[in-house]
Amino acid sequence: MKIQLALDRMTIEEAVQLAEQVRPYVDWIEVGTSMIKEFGMESVRVLRTRFPEKCIVADMKTFDNAAYEFEMCYSAGADVATVMGAAPLVTVETCMEMGTKHGKQVMIDLLHTSEIQRKMLSQYKEAIFCVHVSKDQQEKGDQQQSADSLHSMLKMFGEREQKIALAGGISLKSLPALVPANPDILIIGSAITKAAVPVTAASSIREFLFSWKGVSRDE
Amino acid sequence: MKIQLALDRMTIEEAVQLAEQVRPYVDWIEVGTSMIKEFGMESVRVLRTRFPEKCIVADMKTFDNAAYEFEMCYSAGADVATVMGAAPLVTVETCMEMGTKHGKQVMIDLLHTSEIQRKMLSQYKEAIFCVHVSKDQQEKGDQQQSADSLHSMLKMFGEREQKIALAGGISLKSLPALVPANPDILIIGSAITKAAVPVTAASSIREFLFSWKGVSRDE
Repeated sequence: MKIQLALDRMTIEEAVQLAEQVRPYVDWIEVGTSMIKEFGMESVRVLRTRFPEKCIVADMKTFDNAAYEFEMCYSAGADVATVMGAAPLVTVETCMEMGTKHGKQVMIDLLHTSEIQRKMLSQYKEAIFCVHVSKDQQEKGDQQQSADSLHSMLKMFGEREQKIALAGGISLKSLPALVPANPDILIIGSAITKAAVPVTAASSIREFLFSWKGVSRDE
Repeated sequence: MKIQLALDRMTIEEAVQLAEQVRPYVDWIEVGTSMIKEFGMESVRVLRTRFPEKCIVADMKTFDNAAYEFEMCYSAGADVATVMGAAPLVTVETCMEMGTKHGKQVMIDLLHTSEIQRKMLSQYKEAIFCVHVSKDQQEKGDQQQSADSLHSMLKMFGEREQKIALAGGISLKSLPALVPANPDILIIGSAITKAAVPVTAASSIREFLFSWKGVSRDE
């Protein structure tokens, strides 16, 4: 079970400093959509260069223009790029082709997808599926309801061949309810980045995962 | 009937040069999603500064984090910003609030929305609705089918209180089928930007609109 650190709503330098602090406790580093839209591919290039040992995720949230956008972020150094599952299927299809072409990965964000869309998307066996409660849903909705819907959506996704990532307000508090579902990737943003002491937050989350019987330190 | 020039898949300097060439023939200038993701808000700031008399559209394609993203692009100088109609309603709602707060406009992109979603979105009377066949749909699909679906979707949207924009492979050739539906904004990209002589393409489109009985030169 990997920890993906989501870096959002900050400058590139702040992102570098934050990732540096928690470096031993996270596996993947996500350049958030807000950083990409604010600073462009420079944000991906800097994180790539400064963290050569980490898997870099570009949260592109592609909805169209798939080949161009994926070419752009893979070339900037991303190992994984995201596409919206709510986009036309031809767009997701093109992203999958780009992943294969570049020998890199595609994460399909299931935010606000219908059951029919998720069924269609399940054909992509090589994709990582991101079960996601959005920032806006968290901020304007009930926090507990968000955690519940994350859990129920994960269950609904059921038995799977694909890798599953979970995102949306995940914290040390919500982990006990989520970890038993055995997601492959936990995407954690503000629970680390907005913590009083980010390194303490990150190490506590890591320790919790170690203490969980299903997760070994070798993983 | 306004012409919105969509600038995509190019550098900021190329975008400035292109917009400069066709300046008298277009009304609005769109900083395309690909430019935003490649160069960040710098792309919006530069176009804003170089074209103070034009309405600047930031094609943010927001799907989450609405307040932050809209604050970002309105502050960079955008007059209009786009949100995906396929996003959670709370996200669209937040974009509308940001528009009101800043005294700026919101364009809701109807790409890959369901009929139920469009019905829900029609509550936003102040929004501009963008009927959109995507680049990927155009490139991987049948060009004629794209034009047809644009036309039928526009018809389906029916009588309206909101402003309507049309986007997706619009060219001088497809205009005669689209103009009778009386859209408020025609979003035109490659038919101008990829033309052998962009200024000729833009002026021909403008002349066609002038020649159309429903469009006056004063508009």
